[in-house]
Amino acid sequence: MKFKIKKLGISTGNVAIVVIDDEDAFTMGAKPGDRVKIYPVLADDTLGPAVNAVVDHATGEGLIARGEMGLYDEVRERLHLENGQFTVELQLSSKPKSFAAIKAKIKGETLTPKQIDEIVQDATIGNLLPIEIAAFITGLEIRGLSDEEVVELTNAMANSGEILDFGDEVYDKHSTGGVPGNKVTLIIVPIVAAAGLFIPKTSTRAITSPSGTADSFEVLAPVAFSKEKVLEILTTEKAGILWGGAMDSAPADNTFIRIEKPLSMDPFPLMIASIICKKMSMGVKKLVLDIPCGKGTKFPTPDHGRKFAQRFKLISSKVGIETVCILTSAYQPVGHAVGPALEAQEGLRLLRDYSAGPASLRNKSCELAGILLEMAGKSAHGTGKKLAKEILKSGEAYKAMKRIIKAQGGDPEIDPENIAVGPFHKELYAEEDGYVTEVENAHVNRIAKIAGCPAAKKAGIVIEKKIGAQVKEGDLLFRIYSDSEEKLQEAVEYYNAHKPQILGGMTIERI
Amino acid sequence: MKFKIKKLGISTGNVAIVVIDDEDAFTMGAKPGDRVKIYPVLADDTLGPAVNAVVDHATGEGLIARGEMGLYDEVRERLHLENGQFTVELQLSSKPKSFAAIKAKIKGETLTPKQIDEIVQDATIGNLLPIEIAAFITGLEIRGLSDEEVVELTNAMANSGEILDFGDEVYDKHSTGGVPGNKVTLIIVPIVAAAGLFIPKTSTRAITSPSGTADSFEVLAPVAFSKEKVLEILTTEKAGILWGGAMDSAPADNTFIRIEKPLSMDPFPLMIASIICKKMSMGVKKLVLDIPCGKGTKFPTPDHGRKFAQRFKLISSKVGIETVCILTSAYQPVGHAVGPALEAQEGLRLLRDYSAGPASLRNKSCELAGILLEMAGKSAHGTGKKLAKEILKSGEAYKAMKRIIKAQGGDPEIDPENIAVGPFHKELYAEEDGYVTEVENAHVNRIAKIAGCPAAKKAGIVIEKKIGAQVKEGDLLFRIYSDSEEKLQEAVEYYNAHKPQILGGMTIERI
Repeated sequence: MKFKIKKLGISTGNVAIVVIDDEDAFTMGAKPGDRVKIYPVLADDTLGPAVNAVVDHATGEGLIARGEMGLYDEVRERLHLENGQFTVELQLSSKPKSFAAIKAKIKGETLTPKQIDEIVQDATIGNLLPIEIAAFITGLEIRGLSDEEVVELTNAMANSGEILDFGDEVYDKHSTGGVPGNKVTLIIVPIVAAAGLFIPKTSTRAITSPSGTADSFEVLAPVAFSKEKVLEILTTEKAGILWGGAMDSAPADNTFIRIEKPLSMDPFPLMIASIICKKMSMGVKKLVLDIPCGKGTKFPTPDHGRKFAQRFKLISSKVGIETVCILTSAYQPVGHAVGPALEAQEGLRLLRDYSAGPASLRNKSCELAGILLEMAGKSAHGTGKKLAKEILKSGEAYKAMKRIIKAQGGDPEIDPENIAVGPFHKELYAEEDGYVTEVENAHVNRIAKIAGCPAAKKAGIVIEKKIGAQVKEGDLLFRIYSDSEEKLQEAVEYYNAHKPQILGGMTIERI
Repeated sequence: MKFKIKKLGISTGNVAIVVIDDEDAFTMGAKPGDRVKIYPVLADDTLGPAVNAVVDHATGEGLIARGEMGLYDEVRERLHLENGQFTVELQLSSKPKSFAAIKAKIKGETLTPKQIDEIVQDATIGNLLPIEIAAFITGLEIRGLSDEEVVELTNAMANSGEILDFGDEVYDKHSTGGVPGNKVTLIIVPIVAAAGLFIPKTSTRAITSPSGTADSFEVLAPVAFSKEKVLEILTTEKAGILWGGAMDSAPADNTFIRIEKPLSMDPFPLMIASIICKKMSMGVKKLVLDIPCGKGTKFPTPDHGRKFAQRFKLISSKVGIETVCILTSAYQPVGHAVGPALEAQEGLRLLRDYSAGPASLRNKSCELAGILLEMAGKSAHGTGKKLAKEILKSGEAYKAMKRIIKAQGGDPEIDPENIAVGPFHKELYAEEDGYVTEVENAHVNRIAKIAGCPAAKKAGIVIEKKIGAQVKEGDLLFRIYSDSEEKLQEAVEYYNAHKPQILGGMTIERI
């Protein structure tokens, strides 16, 4: 059935939907939620390539007339309509074969490479509905995947987009996440870039955390570029800190993530495939993987982290990536600052002045950077960290950072002290003497998010006293920054109700 | 944040969605797909009860202005907005606690009654997203439920709506489905009603089959009534053949079904809870359950059906319903007609004239009706079928049917021969001699659906020769009816490509 298109200007968060009149839907036999294929009718009356979507019904407020088809943004983008092209052919379509493969996994069967390819392809082109992908992810969560299946899934996801090739010497770092203030990328990339390593670092924006690396670096320079511009930056600078989301590499991964996140599910096989396929897309060959372990991370104990690390190494090696995994401790924030602008500021201060610290950020960054330097043969086994510290201390890393900022269109001479934060802020002081015995990362994150992170770049927190610090009544413990007085107030209230720093005395036990 | 509402007139198939301007969404921190609560602002400026929804973004075609909130039909209905009431307060809301219970089931834990109640309540009020319900159903499919969990689920689902009470003597029949032309309800209800039993039969419309009982009976009389009207009909007639969908009984069940169907999943625990909760809603106390077993049904072998039957009996007894389960054979259609009008016609012919047959419809209907008569003490164990046949033969069942048709607003004197079918039709003849050795139900259903069922009530098929019939070249084998010449042609093409009746000769094997 043919329809004239009408743009609705509504974005659904990636569910491809079209709206047709109730009567037209009846004629077609299309119920709300039914699956259709949309073919653009070309100038010569032939049909262009189809786009998959789901039907909604217009029910008589005059928005959609008979013979019209309302297009949501997601479908409009996929249709690539040319100027003046406004007729489409709509056909009911049936469930794709890949759904049978999803059902097979739910039944506990091992999937063939062909089945895995079909699932990934259909997910990429929008031929699987969100509820079908949710069923797949739940199936993976319960049934798991064999190593062979994960390798195939990784390859299929990488091949859902373009795979860049920069030769054999391409390095990267990645973190499985879960620690507040983990801004080590801002230090590692310039250190290894200064040593001459090629590091095309793509990062995510925050999804559930107060700030992703892309959010923090964006305070210093743009991070969202087309693939062409990324290639230009990397060819010149051999390093970058980029937002992966703008590049549409491994689009299948994005489709899965859009369902995983609201389900708060991240089954290990899919997590491994997701990390590795994105690295494959950027042509990475050698990787250091930071695996924070402990409360609030994906790995409650180092044992959990170790098992994951072994599997990750195996699978990455099967797709041509050499990985060194480092289990790290996650019991409190890295450094003191949490929030895009505050983290950019803290990172830049350390790059500019080695002695500025903080020690935790300096140490963790140099340990991870050191692994990459060793993998590249820049230093002997066990001496990478020392070399990384030297590069950082010498100011070469800072120079490399300035080159990257400039290449990405930022101001390389930006003074960290001039990075705008707040403007509203509140200092919180100790009400008694004691020692910081514990830090609740979850509360730290929550306070930063209530204050406005990650959307408000200038919002965030600074934790002044960390574990082991001796505290006297009246000492400064915590700062909160926000772009709104109201949000600041809310964040302070949350702070007072859930003090994130636990002040123990010297008492161990009272009997 | 406050918004003025704007009706969009789009129906999404029960996903509650609102559209706000991109900038407003940014101010609220609401990403597409985020969960919100909508509070109507009442005349005295207080807030009415909240409705849950998901946010879409308007992206600048002028459909939604800043400060406006576009409402899809589903949300509009739930908000119960009064005249002139057009301001709402929108607040971001977080994942409900019930999602943690869903995750617990996915992990393989046994759910507490409280957890099950929370899931059912949140599903009912739209507080769980479709992908979250899909994860729950997939979890049930893999992990299953204990009998105690199913009992709790059944109770919670029944309590999601009103539960009617007609005393202790309330009878019903139900079928687990999968056989084409299974129009036995049209015979059973009038038989047992004629015997004085109270039978408030609610049926479904076809979802994946060519005709549901509600679709077929609707050819004779309306089936969609408000709860008030249903009570009126049942109080007077003590019997009815009604469309359950119009009554909103056990609304939680409908929510689950809307996700199960597109996933083609129907985990047994949920299937049991679904059937029983609907019966509880109608105050049913005694039930005969028809369990067709065989290819194309939910039970490939009688063994599968037997296990299901035992579990069903146990669970229904725990919620106060006595059930007798009957395993029936499903290897070919019941009777000859498939499709709403053709089935109504075949049923009415049998009611009017016992000798008209068809024998399979007469026998199956009387067997099941007989069980109910025995349960009611109207006849001794083993003699119910005989009594059912007598009632059918005497014309009393036909009289009861006419009373039901009249009470529901149809024409009780309708002559089955005057029920309109087609009008386009095609007769298909045997091309060789032989015996019908097999009937492919799936092809029978497909042909009826291609011809236009269930939307086109006059469409359908008549299978003239069933298993065991001797066929001579040129004998009439099959008829197809359609409301459109084009669909008829398509259905004939499908018939020719997939002959649903397999004509074997006398050869067993060629060596």
